[in-house]
Amino acid sequence: MGDPAGIGPETIAKAWDARRERALPPFVAVGDRRAIARVWNGPVAAVSDLNAVPEVFGEALPVLTVQDAGEIVPGVPDIDGARCAVRALELATGLVRSGAGRALVTGPVSKAQLYQTGFTYPGQTEFVAERCGIARDNAVMMLAGPGLRVVPMTTHVPLADVPGLLTVELILAKARVTARAMTRNFAIERPRLAFAGLNPHAGEDGALGREEIEVMRPAIEQLRDEGIDVRGPLAADTMFHPRARAHYDVALCPYHDQALVPLKTLFFDDGVNMTLGLPIVRTSPDHGTAFGIAGQGVAHPGATIAAILMADEAATCRARCATS
Amino acid sequence: MGDPAGIGPETIAKAWDARRERALPPFVAVGDRRAIARVWNGPVAAVSDLNAVPEVFGEALPVLTVQDAGEIVPGVPDIDGARCAVRALELATGLVRSGAGRALVTGPVSKAQLYQTGFTYPGQTEFVAERCGIARDNAVMMLAGPGLRVVPMTTHVPLADVPGLLTVELILAKARVTARAMTRNFAIERPRLAFAGLNPHAGEDGALGREEIEVMRPAIEQLRDEGIDVRGPLAADTMFHPRARAHYDVALCPYHDQALVPLKTLFFDDGVNMTLGLPIVRTSPDHGTAFGIAGQGVAHPGATIAAILMADEAATCRARCATS
Repeated sequence: MGDPAGIGPETIAKAWDARRERALPPFVAVGDRRAIARVWNGPVAAVSDLNAVPEVFGEALPVLTVQDAGEIVPGVPDIDGARCAVRALELATGLVRSGAGRALVTGPVSKAQLYQTGFTYPGQTEFVAERCGIARDNAVMMLAGPGLRVVPMTTHVPLADVPGLLTVELILAKARVTARAMTRNFAIERPRLAFAGLNPHAGEDGALGREEIEVMRPAIEQLRDEGIDVRGPLAADTMFHPRARAHYDVALCPYHDQALVPLKTLFFDDGVNMTLGLPIVRTSPDHGTAFGIAGQGVAHPGATIAAILMADEAATCRARCATS
Repeated sequence: MGDPAGIGPETIAKAWDARRERALPPFVAVGDRRAIARVWNGPVAAVSDLNAVPEVFGEALPVLTVQDAGEIVPGVPDIDGARCAVRALELATGLVRSGAGRALVTGPVSKAQLYQTGFTYPGQTEFVAERCGIARDNAVMMLAGPGLRVVPMTTHVPLADVPGLLTVELILAKARVTARAMTRNFAIERPRLAFAGLNPHAGEDGALGREEIEVMRPAIEQLRDEGIDVRGPLAADTMFHPRARAHYDVALCPYHDQALVPLKTLFFDDGVNMTLGLPIVRTSPDHGTAFGIAGQGVAHPGATIAAILMADEAATCRARCATS
């Protein structure tokens, strides 16, 4: 559910409302069920076991309450709510790790609130990675919307630090995880990876920067030698319009805004964040807690619905591969 | 016409074909008329004087031949073609400077070819600026599509140089020219300027970079003191989706890709480049010579049509202000 005072509970409830129309698989909300009741009048079914979810899902939103979140006021986060969000994350991760759940979809949390509870991870992604026994650097963030997947190779760092962080090793690591994940989660047998250049016009043969020549090309050559279908570095400004997107399955971008600007410009209401490189499937809606609109009934469930559908797709794909 | 071997002549001819459907004002192609004939079978009217344009425009594409471009092979640029492009630019600029023409629309050129002719300007923009008596640094590049205008405050420089180039003075200069131009060209009385932050999430209060606090905010405060409606710095990734765009008239971005990625992602086929800060109106289609598809009949005239329409809009706006 993420933070109980954010829009997570409302978007989950609205997703359940859309379960038939959007053909959603059964899911269970993990958190404090009062957070749902506070913002939604629909039917809730308290469950204590994931086996009960499929049978009740048609008629009520299944909720697994992990911990009392204290007094819940939409839009006003507090430490009890943050503690509940951490416990929910912990339980949901464990349920999916153990195989009781097929996939994990995490709701939006406030990092500032989490840190006050003593949460020592930068965010939910690192927590999930380490619970899965994966070094946090090997968990790769991918953002996706209908017809576009992007991987920012560096994420929440100052822009001035990006050129120094973009190394051959970083590119190799991100690309290998990404390529494997495309096959494993989306059954793309030979995924096409497109790299955005760091510099404008991908450096124009060195005239506008040399990172493409000195760092990106050697990494791309090595990936090609490993049998990965790689293209680029491409000029970032001309690689995201519809015809250009048809030529690749995922774009790898040197920095945050280069990846996130096209994604959120095109798919602001239904962007999904997926963590690649984990033994479990984990997605989340690509938006924050939106405390400013929480409790007003205006939150858009599009990203949550898309996150549930993508998680289902990936879990189904993995199960098929495992049994074939 | 730009380079006679590029797609400029074809897009101009196709724009003329669309003159009624798109309600285009009379225009004249300046260059070598054989470049048009080489790629288009429609009627051409050689004119030697702009006064003849309106009367012939309904029935034939008016062309003002400036210089023989030698043997014209679409897709194969040469120095004769580049010389013709320079002469065409020179004459067209002069015609608009003198008031004989209302606005200048420049076609795509190959910079590599131009430099071989001894052309000493970085590009057409700087040439036009200096012919207009404007220092090249005061000519501001704006890119526009339906519902989005962007100004990259730095342009063709390596990404690593951007943080150092983003100064209070640069921001003030770009913003003042931009604000004035919004009023002058588009009759927006109180234009709303939105600044994109340099860093991801606009620096998150300094956690992801300090340029927003140390450079951008002081500049923005000063602009506000001058009476300009400024907002930001905003997180770049969430400022370009349709609802966000409704809150500003033009976005000013610290670097090339931050401005160009959203523009070309959304409006690849009809983006317009307009030079702000000039005494004349100057636009151009926001694409290159596309030598690879020249002469095949597949060039898309959307950007040329949009450039003509925007030039007409701005020229009309300026004339109205001048007489009111």
